[in-house]
Amino acid sequence: MITPVILSGGSGTRLWPMSTPDHPKQFLALTGDETMFAQTLARADDPAHFTAPIIVANARHQALIEAQLGGRGATLLLEPAARNTAPAIALAALAAPDAILLVMPSDHVIADPAAFQAAVARALPLAEAGWHVTFGIAPDAPETGYGYIQMGAVLAEGVQQIARFVEKPDATRAAAMLAEGGYSWNGGIFLFRADAYLAALDEHAPAIRSAAAQAMAKAETKAGEGAGVTVNLPDADAFAAAPSESIDYAVMEKIARAAVVPVSMGWSDVGSWDALAALNATDAEGNALSGSVIAVDSKDCFIMSDKLRIAAIGLEGFTIIASGNDVLIMPKGRAQDVKAVVERLNS
Amino acid sequence: MITPVILSGGSGTRLWPMSTPDHPKQFLALTGDETMFAQTLARADDPAHFTAPIIVANARHQALIEAQLGGRGATLLLEPAARNTAPAIALAALAAPDAILLVMPSDHVIADPAAFQAAVARALPLAEAGWHVTFGIAPDAPETGYGYIQMGAVLAEGVQQIARFVEKPDATRAAAMLAEGGYSWNGGIFLFRADAYLAALDEHAPAIRSAAAQAMAKAETKAGEGAGVTVNLPDADAFAAAPSESIDYAVMEKIARAAVVPVSMGWSDVGSWDALAALNATDAEGNALSGSVIAVDSKDCFIMSDKLRIAAIGLEGFTIIASGNDVLIMPKGRAQDVKAVVERLNS
Repeated sequence: MITPVILSGGSGTRLWPMSTPDHPKQFLALTGDETMFAQTLARADDPAHFTAPIIVANARHQALIEAQLGGRGATLLLEPAARNTAPAIALAALAAPDAILLVMPSDHVIADPAAFQAAVARALPLAEAGWHVTFGIAPDAPETGYGYIQMGAVLAEGVQQIARFVEKPDATRAAAMLAEGGYSWNGGIFLFRADAYLAALDEHAPAIRSAAAQAMAKAETKAGEGAGVTVNLPDADAFAAAPSESIDYAVMEKIARAAVVPVSMGWSDVGSWDALAALNATDAEGNALSGSVIAVDSKDCFIMSDKLRIAAIGLEGFTIIASGNDVLIMPKGRAQDVKAVVERLNS
Repeated sequence: MITPVILSGGSGTRLWPMSTPDHPKQFLALTGDETMFAQTLARADDPAHFTAPIIVANARHQALIEAQLGGRGATLLLEPAARNTAPAIALAALAAPDAILLVMPSDHVIADPAAFQAAVARALPLAEAGWHVTFGIAPDAPETGYGYIQMGAVLAEGVQQIARFVEKPDATRAAAMLAEGGYSWNGGIFLFRADAYLAALDEHAPAIRSAAAQAMAKAETKAGEGAGVTVNLPDADAFAAAPSESIDYAVMEKIARAAVVPVSMGWSDVGSWDALAALNATDAEGNALSGSVIAVDSKDCFIMSDKLRIAAIGLEGFTIIASGNDVLIMPKGRAQDVKAVVERLNS
């Protein structure tokens, strides 16, 4: 049995105005009828293989999360502060020290969940043997927004040792890796034994291990709204002492027994409006329109509105997002600048 | 004394979404702190020269109009149906048959009212002598959206006989007139004796005269909300018989004693978002922004929002108008296509 660990940490500034700190992107149905959070739950809920999930989340999202569970049991670990992935996963490992953990961000899209589940099955024997396994996405463009993994020796059918991690590269370096081959994107999904992870923390990031352990030792536990839902509130002061480090930096890059399972599963981190636009089906004019939208003489536009009425005339290659009383308008390709808008809103 | 006649007939589709049938553009403060209706009232309210105005309007705008009067007395003639300008002005002439009428659309901007008042003073002796006088705007571009007036013999200082009316020309014809000189735009503002206008109708458009006369004979009269406000409801069936014709077509083009006073007064009919954009002062980036607008790396944009928050990234030369729950987005120069949007909304 595998215990899903769902990380619900993002603050969601890159998909403003739909995504906000109170309602980040994993709780939005941007890519279909279901939220990305619900899709993540559904991806690992076959009771033949998976236990109830552990969800590590911001306390202010408790109600949103419980609404997504749909009657499932779960353990909610409500982080008193965001300390990046290594401490978040440490809380989960401490909550289920005998489990094999499948760590999944809650705000990614996987179009082919069967391919993902097959990859998990390939990874399982290595994870049982104490390896930390990550899942590698075949790069199809020289993206500078992802970490890369150089794949090394074959360990088993479809599993390779990680030769090297490459942090987010510049465009030249990304293009070179794409040309060279043998690299995967680091998708941020992991499979390993909880005790192996805790042992790796002991060796490479003891401050994270001890802060998480103290936070869990002093945690408050209460029942959630739903049947079989347990809510765990780790101690804030203790957890605040954990260094804010990613699992890649704190553990994966440091350990010898790190493996990668390359998998083609229609993965996207939906990290920007440009990324989401690329996921949407378009009409004959190349437009992807949702909500109350009138497009006159417009093409290659991505327009999404939750309640406002949008009239576009003579636009080509634009993204327009309307949510609540906010409207974002930009040419495609400028999605990275949304951050600048959110910073100005908050300043 | 001159009696101002304010025509409040437009349905305002060209400035959607700010302007709507229930709240057309004359009742919006698009060009300053005051509505164009209020600006029109103020342009002719010096009691040394003007009586209380006659306002010819759509019945559904009565409350909006009374709110604009600001304590002034007025006669409201509420049209039972829109029948273009010749019948509307006939109602006003019948309501004040001994007056000299200054007919003004309520949805134009005149940046220099003193120049306008001086032009009215120049026109007055001719009007008193029975001429129909219009005010000619010096063309500064080969506009195809206006009628043109060829100016003929000089009748008095600053007053010329009208040689010829030219209906909205094509671009080639407009450019030729601009090059030739001696033409004015027909601004739709007129000064004449009510009895001269009624006599001209008798001769050239008797069906308008008789329909208007019967509508006024059977009119209901009641007091308005404000002191000195009289509301007149012409009979609907009688008025419906009036042909729907413009004063230009029904009278001005047919009569011999038609004159034009050319005047430079910062006139605009604010006939489109492009026209309004041209009236607005811009910042160092060429942007004219009003309301809650964040513009990042954007220039030459005209963005106006009454309550929504608009974030623009990387836009150049765009018009964005947000009103209520509607948002219009288009490149500058496409304002004529707003009509297509409104038609699709109504279909």
